[in-house]
Amino acid sequence: MEKVKMILDCDTGHDDAIALMLAAKHPEIQLLGVTVVAGNQTLDKTLPNTLNVCQHLGLDVKVYGGMDRPMVRDRIVADDVHGASGLDGPVFEERTKEAEKEHAVSYLIRTLMESDGDITLVPVGPLSNIGMAMRLEPRIINKIKRIVLMGGAVGIGNVTPGAEFNVFADPEAAHVVFSSGLPIVMMGLDLTNQTIATMEIIERMEGIGNKAGKLFGDIMRFTFESQKVNGLSGGPVHDVTAVMYLVHPEFFETRDMFVEVDLSKGPSYGRTVADINDRFHKEPNVTVGLNTNLPAFWDEVERVLRLHI
Amino acid sequence: MEKVKMILDCDTGHDDAIALMLAAKHPEIQLLGVTVVAGNQTLDKTLPNTLNVCQHLGLDVKVYGGMDRPMVRDRIVADDVHGASGLDGPVFEERTKEAEKEHAVSYLIRTLMESDGDITLVPVGPLSNIGMAMRLEPRIINKIKRIVLMGGAVGIGNVTPGAEFNVFADPEAAHVVFSSGLPIVMMGLDLTNQTIATMEIIERMEGIGNKAGKLFGDIMRFTFESQKVNGLSGGPVHDVTAVMYLVHPEFFETRDMFVEVDLSKGPSYGRTVADINDRFHKEPNVTVGLNTNLPAFWDEVERVLRLHI
Amino acid sequence: MEKVKMILDCDTGHDDAIALMLAAKHPEIQLLGVTVVAGNQTLDKTLPNTLNVCQHLGLDVKVYGGMDRPMVRDRIVADDVHGASGLDGPVFEERTKEAEKEHAVSYLIRTLMESDGDITLVPVGPLSNIGMAMRLEPRIINKIKRIVLMGGAVGIGNVTPGAEFNVFADPEAAHVVFSSGLPIVMMGLDLTNQTIATMEIIERMEGIGNKAGKLFGDIMRFTFESQKVNGLSGGPVHDVTAVMYLVHPEFFETRDMFVEVDLSKGPSYGRTVADINDRFHKEPNVTVGLNTNLPAFWDEVERVLRLHI
Amino acid sequence: MEKVKMILDCDTGHDDAIALMLAAKHPEIQLLGVTVVAGNQTLDKTLPNTLNVCQHLGLDVKVYGGMDRPMVRDRIVADDVHGASGLDGPVFEERTKEAEKEHAVSYLIRTLMESDGDITLVPVGPLSNIGMAMRLEPRIINKIKRIVLMGGAVGIGNVTPGAEFNVFADPEAAHVVFSSGLPIVMMGLDLTNQTIATMEIIERMEGIGNKAGKLFGDIMRFTFESQKVNGLSGGPVHDVTAVMYLVHPEFFETRDMFVEVDLSKGPSYGRTVADINDRFHKEPNVTVGLNTNLPAFWDEVERVLRLHI
Repeated sequence: MEKVKMILDCDTGHDDAIALMLAAKHPEIQLLGVTVVAGNQTLDKTLPNTLNVCQHLGLDVKVYGGMDRPMVRDRIVADDVHGASGLDGPVFEERTKEAEKEHAVSYLIRTLMESDGDITLVPVGPLSNIGMAMRLEPRIINKIKRIVLMGGAVGIGNVTPGAEFNVFADPEAAHVVFSSGLPIVMMGLDLTNQTIATMEIIERMEGIGNKAGKLFGDIMRFTFESQKVNGLSGGPVHDVTAVMYLVHPEFFETRDMFVEVDLSKGPSYGRTVADINDRFHKEPNVTVGLNTNLPAFWDEVERVLRLHI
Repeated sequence: MEKVKMILDCDTGHDDAIALMLAAKHPEIQLLGVTVVAGNQTLDKTLPNTLNVCQHLGLDVKVYGGMDRPMVRDRIVADDVHGASGLDGPVFEERTKEAEKEHAVSYLIRTLMESDGDITLVPVGPLSNIGMAMRLEPRIINKIKRIVLMGGAVGIGNVTPGAEFNVFADPEAAHVVFSSGLPIVMMGLDLTNQTIATMEIIERMEGIGNKAGKLFGDIMRFTFESQKVNGLSGGPVHDVTAVMYLVHPEFFETRDMFVEVDLSKGPSYGRTVADINDRFHKEPNVTVGLNTNLPAFWDEVERVLRLHI
Repeated sequence: MEKVKMILDCDTGHDDAIALMLAAKHPEIQLLGVTVVAGNQTLDKTLPNTLNVCQHLGLDVKVYGGMDRPMVRDRIVADDVHGASGLDGPVFEERTKEAEKEHAVSYLIRTLMESDGDITLVPVGPLSNIGMAMRLEPRIINKIKRIVLMGGAVGIGNVTPGAEFNVFADPEAAHVVFSSGLPIVMMGLDLTNQTIATMEIIERMEGIGNKAGKLFGDIMRFTFESQKVNGLSGGPVHDVTAVMYLVHPEFFETRDMFVEVDLSKGPSYGRTVADINDRFHKEPNVTVGLNTNLPAFWDEVERVLRLHI
Repeated sequence: MEKVKMILDCDTGHDDAIALMLAAKHPEIQLLGVTVVAGNQTLDKTLPNTLNVCQHLGLDVKVYGGMDRPMVRDRIVADDVHGASGLDGPVFEERTKEAEKEHAVSYLIRTLMESDGDITLVPVGPLSNIGMAMRLEPRIINKIKRIVLMGGAVGIGNVTPGAEFNVFADPEAAHVVFSSGLPIVMMGLDLTNQTIATMEIIERMEGIGNKAGKLFGDIMRFTFESQKVNGLSGGPVHDVTAVMYLVHPEFFETRDMFVEVDLSKGPSYGRTVADINDRFHKEPNVTVGLNTNLPAFWDEVERVLRLHI
C-alpha cells in the first residue's frame, strides 16, 4: 500500500507532540515535513518544543518555523492549558537540532507547487501558515489533496463558550481555509474531547518501556491536570485524531455539513458555526468527526509508540 | 402549601398548548393570566390557538394578546415545525371565547405593579412582551419574583446552527431580559430536546380517555413528524419544562452560568452564549437546565392531564 | 392656511428648549403635545427641564413623560454638552407645572389612533418613545403623516466619529423608525452644525427684550462653550431645524437617499449610514437636510421669539 | 538634498499611473521599485497596466507582481470607475517590458530587511501586499521609515456610503497596517476628492506637448466621466497626493487623529473610523490629510510631467 504523504502543521503543545510521534513513525504515513506556528505558545517556544521532541526521539524530519502571529487579530496563547513553555512537563536534553532556514509558508508553497497534488495537509494548530500560503500563492489550492485538521467545535468551545482555541486564535485564517473549496475533515472538540488520556492510558503507554512511552507519560500527566479548566476529567490528545484519521478513517464517525467561521466581533467570534441539522440549506463543505472507536484508537497509538526508540 | 403565582407568556404552538394544560390545572399553581405573543406563528394565529385550547378544555383564565412582532428585528415564524395555523393537528369547535381588550404588555405592567412581588413569569415564546414591558415600565423588574423561561441552548440550536427559535425570533428582547439582573431559569434545547413525546408517551396520554389526553395526542402526533427537521426522533414538549420546574425543581439538573445573547448580525445572531465552563470569568446570571428525570416528568404530566375534563 | 399639527418629542436639552419655543408659538403650527424622553440627560432631568421652559414662558401645552432608557442598549447621556441638569445655564422659578399622568408612549398611540392621519411627529431626541410606540401598536404607522426628526449624520458624528448622539443613544429605536416605511425627513449634523448661535445671534435674540429672548440667551451662552468638544465655534440649535422645516421647507436644501442605522457593535454602532451617492442602489427612504438659508432661518426664529412673553 | 527613498505599491488604475509618473521622475525621489496588487482591477490587468505605463514613458524601474486577492475577504474590483482593463482610455504599444520573477511581498520583505530603515512605503491601492509582508515578516515594521498611503475617508466613502475603495477592498490588511504602530500619513477622500483634473487641467497637461502630458490627458479624460458615480465633477488624481506629500508636505493641511478600520460585517465594513474630534480619547496613530494647496499641487505635477519624454 502506498503511504499517505502529509505535512504536519503544529504549535507544539502537548497533544501536538503525540500527533508528531504518530505521524513520524506510522508505517503507512510519509511525513514530508513539519511546519510550526504560534498557538499554544509563542513561536519562540513552539518551534523549540517541536525540535526537542524530534531530537529526543531521533525523528529525522525537517522542521520549518512559520507564522509567529495570526493573519489579522491580536495574538493569544493557551498557557492555562500548556504552561509557560507550551510543553510543560517533560525535560529535554540540550538541543542541537535546528529548524530549516526556509519560512514555513515558503516551504508549503514550494513543496505543494512541486508536488503531484498528492499531499495532505494536517494542521493541528491555528491555521495561520495555511491561510497565508493560500493567499500568497492561491494556486496551491489545486495542489492540496485535502486538509485534515484539528480545530473547531459543533457544540461547546474551550477558549470561549462557543470557540475552540485553534480557530479562535486565528479566525480569519480559518475562514480562508474553510472557504477554500478544498475537501476538509475537521476533528473538533465534540470528538477530540472523547480522547482523554486517562491515568490508565498514561500508565499503559509508559509501560511500553521505551523513550516514546515515557515521553507520552511525561506529557499527558501535565495536561491531565491542566485541562480541567475545560470541565474535562483529564487531557485529551486532540491533535492525534487528525493524524489517525489519515490512516484509519474507519475509527471515526463523521458527518458532512456546512461550516462557517464566525468573523463577527461579538461573543461568538472564532466559533465554527457548524450546521449539523442543515438549517441554512447550504452545500456541505466539511466532513466533521463526531465519535471515535476509543479502544481501536488507543491500540493504534500504542502500536506506533512501540515502533519508536 | 401556597400556590405558585404565575403568568404564562406563550406563542401557542404545540408544546405551548401542553404547557398551558399543565399550568392551568396543576394543584400547586395559580395561573393568573395568559399573555400571547407572535412566534411559532403570527399573533393572529397564536392568539386564537390559545383561546381554542382554553375553550376546548374549559379553562377559565383570561388571555391577553400582545406583541405581534419583535422589538427590533424582522418577524420570523416557525411554520416548518408548527404548520400553517401554528397548531396544526387538532380540530377545534367554533370559538366563542375571546381575548381581553387590554394589551398583554399593559396587563403585565399593571398586574406586576399591583402585586406583592410574588409573581413568576413563565415565558415560553419569544420574549417580546416581557422585554417591552421591562423597558416601558422598568420598575416591574423589582416586582417580578423570577423568570422561568423556555428558550436558548448551551449547545446546538434549532433554527440556526447556534440559535434556538424563541431567542432568535427576538434576540433584542432576550437581551433585555437576560441582562435585567433578575433571577432567571433557562430551559434550553440541551434539556428540552430530551422531552420527546414518543409514540409510547402519546398513546399513554391518549389512554387517559379524557379530552385533555385526546388533545395531547392530536397535538403531539403532529410534531412527532415535523420536529424531524431538527434531527429529533419525535416532538419534544419544550415549553412544559418551564412550567414543571416551578413545582418540581427536583426533577431537573441545572447549573448556574453567565449567559449573554449574541446581538452581532453574523451567523451566531440570536445564540445564547452560555459560559458553561466559565471561560469568561463573569458572574453567573442564569440557572440553566441540563437534564431532567424523564419518568418523573411524564408521570406528573399524566397526573395533571387526568385532572382535566 | 391650515396649521400643521405636530407632537414634539424631546429630551430637553438646550436646543430642545429653543425648538419647543418655536413650536409652541409659531402661527402656522398646532402643537398638540410634548412627549419627553431620556437623552441629553436622564428622564428625571429632561422632564422637569421641559416643564420649566413651559412654565417660564407660560406655554399651555400638555407634557408627557416617556421612556427613561433606550429600547435595548445601555443608557448614555450627553452631560459633556448639556451639563449636570441637562439644561445648565438658565435659572427657573419654583416649578408648579406638572407632567400628565399618561405615559408618552400611550399618549402617542392614543392620539395617533384617534387622529385623521394628519399629525406629524417631530422627534428631536433619541427615538425610544417613537420606536416603542411603533412596536407596541404597529397600526400607528398608517396614522402618522410623516416624521421630521433631528438626528444622524451623513458625514461626521458628534458622540463617536461616525454617530450622532440621538441615534447613538438608541440605535435600535432609530432602526425601527428608519425602516418603518414612513416618509422621514432627517435633519442631521451636516445641516444642523451650520446653525450655530454666534455671539451676534445670541445678542440679537436677547435684544428682543422679552422673557423668551432672555431665555434664548441664557441657554445658548452655555452651549456656546460646551459644544467646542465637537470642534464647533459655538452651540448649534440642532433641534430647531426640524420644527422649522415643517413650516419653511423652502429654507432647506435636501436630498432623498437610502439611510440605514448601523446596528453592528463595532466602532460605527449607531451611525446613520446615508447613501448620498447611491452606491447601494437601494430605494431612498429618507429626505436628508444638507444646507439651510441661515439669514432666513434666524429671521424666522426672531420673529417667533417676539410672539412670546 | 538627499532623495526620499520610496517603494510605490499600486493597482494601476488611472490615478495610479499619474502617481507613478510623479514618483519616477521627481528629482527628490528615488523610486526603488514598484509593487503591484489587485484592486481597481484584477492583478492580471493591474500588472500589465503598470508595465505599459513604464514602457510607454521609458521608466527604468523594476515592477513586482503581488497579491491577486485580499488577505481574508472576497475580491472586488472597481470597474465602474476604471473600466474593463482597469486603465481604460490610453492605447499602448505592444508590451515587451516584463515583471520581475520575485513576488512583491518577498521583494518588500527582502528590500526592507536589507535597508537602513530609510525607505518610505507609498501604497495607493488595497493594502494586501503590505499587510501580508507585515505578518509574514513582522521585523519589517522596524525597518519601514513610514507609510504614506492613499485610502480611507474621514467623511463620505466612494464604494459604500462610509468606505473608500482601497480600504474596503481589503479591510483586514488595512487593519494590520493601521494598527502596526508605524507613523502613517493617510490621504483620504476628504482631501483627494479636491484634486479633480478639470478639463482646464487636462488641457494644460496635454499642452506640455510630450508623451507624459499626452498620457495624462488620455487617462484623465476617461475618469472625467466615470468618476461621476461618486457625485464628482471630474476625476481626481487621488494617488498622486500620497507621492506629492513625500516631497511637499507643505502643500497639505493635516491633522493627527486616531483611526481604526471597521471590521464589523455591517454596512460600515471597511470604513476608516477617523476620530477627528477625539471623541474616543485614544492616542492619534495617523496623520490625516484634509486640504491641499491646489495651485501649487498642479504646478508641481506639471513641472514633473515636463521632465518626462
